[in-house]
Amino acid sequence: MTTITSARTFDIRAPTSRTLAGSDAVHQDPDYSGAYVVLSTDGGHEGVGMTFTIGRGNDLCCAAIDQLAPLIVGRDLEELTADGAAFWRRLTNDGQLRWLGPEKGVIHLATAALVNAVWDLWAKVDDKPLWRLVCDLTPEQFVDSIDFRYLTDALDRDEALDLLRALEPTRADRIAELERIGYPAYLTSAGWLGYSESQVRDLCRQALADGWRSFKTKVGIDVASDVRRCEIMREEIGDLPLMADANQVWDVPQAIEWMTHLEPFDLRWIEEPTSPDDILGHAAIRRAIAPIGVATGEHAANRVIFKQLLQAEAIDYCQIDACRLGGVNEVLAVLLLAAEFGVPVCPHAGGLGLCEYVQHHSIIDYVCVSGSLDDRTTEFADHLHEHFVNPARIHEGRYVVPQSAGSSIDLLPDSFAELSYPDGGVWRR
Amino acid sequence: MTTITSARTFDIRAPTSRTLAGSDAVHQDPDYSGAYVVLSTDGGHEGVGMTFTIGRGNDLCCAAIDQLAPLIVGRDLEELTADGAAFWRRLTNDGQLRWLGPEKGVIHLATAALVNAVWDLWAKVDDKPLWRLVCDLTPEQFVDSIDFRYLTDALDRDEALDLLRALEPTRADRIAELERIGYPAYLTSAGWLGYSESQVRDLCRQALADGWRSFKTKVGIDVASDVRRCEIMREEIGDLPLMADANQVWDVPQAIEWMTHLEPFDLRWIEEPTSPDDILGHAAIRRAIAPIGVATGEHAANRVIFKQLLQAEAIDYCQIDACRLGGVNEVLAVLLLAAEFGVPVCPHAGGLGLCEYVQHHSIIDYVCVSGSLDDRTTEFADHLHEHFVNPARIHEGRYVVPQSAGSSIDLLPDSFAELSYPDGGVWRR
Repeated sequence: MTTITSARTFDIRAPTSRTLAGSDAVHQDPDYSGAYVVLSTDGGHEGVGMTFTIGRGNDLCCAAIDQLAPLIVGRDLEELTADGAAFWRRLTNDGQLRWLGPEKGVIHLATAALVNAVWDLWAKVDDKPLWRLVCDLTPEQFVDSIDFRYLTDALDRDEALDLLRALEPTRADRIAELERIGYPAYLTSAGWLGYSESQVRDLCRQALADGWRSFKTKVGIDVASDVRRCEIMREEIGDLPLMADANQVWDVPQAIEWMTHLEPFDLRWIEEPTSPDDILGHAAIRRAIAPIGVATGEHAANRVIFKQLLQAEAIDYCQIDACRLGGVNEVLAVLLLAAEFGVPVCPHAGGLGLCEYVQHHSIIDYVCVSGSLDDRTTEFADHLHEHFVNPARIHEGRYVVPQSAGSSIDLLPDSFAELSYPDGGVWRR
Repeated sequence: MTTITSARTFDIRAPTSRTLAGSDAVHQDPDYSGAYVVLSTDGGHEGVGMTFTIGRGNDLCCAAIDQLAPLIVGRDLEELTADGAAFWRRLTNDGQLRWLGPEKGVIHLATAALVNAVWDLWAKVDDKPLWRLVCDLTPEQFVDSIDFRYLTDALDRDEALDLLRALEPTRADRIAELERIGYPAYLTSAGWLGYSESQVRDLCRQALADGWRSFKTKVGIDVASDVRRCEIMREEIGDLPLMADANQVWDVPQAIEWMTHLEPFDLRWIEEPTSPDDILGHAAIRRAIAPIGVATGEHAANRVIFKQLLQAEAIDYCQIDACRLGGVNEVLAVLLLAAEFGVPVCPHAGGLGLCEYVQHHSIIDYVCVSGSLDDRTTEFADHLHEHFVNPARIHEGRYVVPQSAGSSIDLLPDSFAELSYPDGGVWRR
């Protein structure tokens, strides 16, 4: 038995606002941050988990983790993993804390950190990368980790089992394929809204030279500038896939009108065209702007929102977020929902640690759940990876399958100290 | 000019779990709590605001208020009230804090406290009760307090103005009517799930003797016990209106099946039959169980969720919450949306301070927005009112129109000290 003996939280922030990396129409000065939790055990293993924020309020997530932690400290890892659905239900249904969400906002971000830490611990105890741990689960073990509450009108346990069983015999083939060629990715970091035209042009050229073949730009503050940015990117990347991200800035009618100006650029999708809560709004936009696709999810609070985005035929691309959803258990639920509705999963990443996390989820999706790479691509942004012990690695525009034990989220000791807020070196200077 | 010079927060909790008051199918041991904020000004006025929680995590809301407060401290009240939409947008769109919601969970609960405090301050400076302050606004001033972002596909500024202008000439008549007869209410506190059958029976008799004519019970854990509770209440209250509240406990198919067992009891509505995020689920349940109505809203995170509940024809009753929504500005937006769609607003109340708040909103709704009392009733639960300087008052089952300045949310100094967590007297004993 492995008993969890303590949970310690750490407020980690990178001063990305100093360079406008990560800037978009709504988040104009993000400091990419992680509310980290480290679970210690009696056997000497550590499980590390994180939720992502963009600066102020990261401490609120740490404080929320501290309030949830008593629900797992003192428990045996084997108990938590044997009935993952019960473990997840316990964290999301505390009789008092639930009021703060339910299953959304700070308390759900904190849930993600703790849940991700338990899976990291499990993978390290088993000496496997997270994706391998999940791919080694039987279909029954896989679904036993999922809380199907509020999902059964769209997907129940038996339907999920059918999906998983159909792909189980061929899992090894797809693992071998990914280990050979990697998982397809696209690059966001050429098109941050705070960057100048010449910066965007230079970054596109560099990215092409590095093997990138799929790109995304930020849009949404000014039509003329959006058109100009798309022109520049099209000039640089030719007819390679190009996506655009509005980061929730428009109303529904405004989104539809704005997109008529971007029609010439053959965009694969427009991302977050309006409020992330507006399921019916996304559906209306999608109907109006086809064949341009609609993508959303990085701010979709939980599996119930994703269920409805799928039921309402509101999205062409399902963008799970490793930390906005309540950690691995809920991510697996959404992978299954998307497969049931035939919608490709293209995870959100780019912030601190998100690329490291979602590479595992995309592998799990292909190997166990969807069995397809068609129209799939996982976001990548090229910054802050230098702080990780086992950073996400890209080769020729594709994620290289990670092989170290755990979920790739451990920070280097020096980075941990340097980025600690407010006392780390980068904040004192 | 009145300048806001400081914002201080206070963690106030009542140990209601000791008596099971407030218990339901999901929240089995609530300690009704308020994260309070007191705005001080250079002129000696104080504005008091609160958000409601049920215990653990109330401190997270206080900490979130502390993070938002710098956005209003140092500002002039007149600036905030002259352009309420801009003030509200500033609070909900901080470039970093927004990530924690957006507009949901802890950060939005904290927004509610601050926004409500600004309105309380405004009402006290003008020496009016909150409802009177709003009823004295012109239609233009009323809509200028609303951020229409994400609403314009359902309701824009001009449509809102039309609604308000149509009722403006007759506002005084409705105020006079309410001051004469009060605003219709219903009683929840006879039917908490933790209460015994004989307790429920005794409470119904007492309530009838006190003049109550409309009741609600909790359901959702056990069909047989729900049927028994409805039988008892029907025996006691005859054919007076009876509602039931499931507090999110069911899946969609389960809700539909469960309600067949409660069909004999002529329920006016079933409240929160499933996840508060499940707009399409509520719509499916409503279609299946008509003529029993569907009510929800106390956990509807923001105006975008309400917009969709109305667009999808998912609810018969719109249950705004004074603190789940981002304070008065967003409450006014939802009153207008509900009127536009012809759905009656029946506010959620019952927790600490919520009755005190929503009495103002219901008066505003009748006087300025809907102009109707048909099928309207505002929740009341009979506990904790003794802690307020100007508590909500009921006469013959109707709210008495409050006349003191402000939003009725000030606590008595002794109660403030007694309920302070963790050092107040009630927590030390």
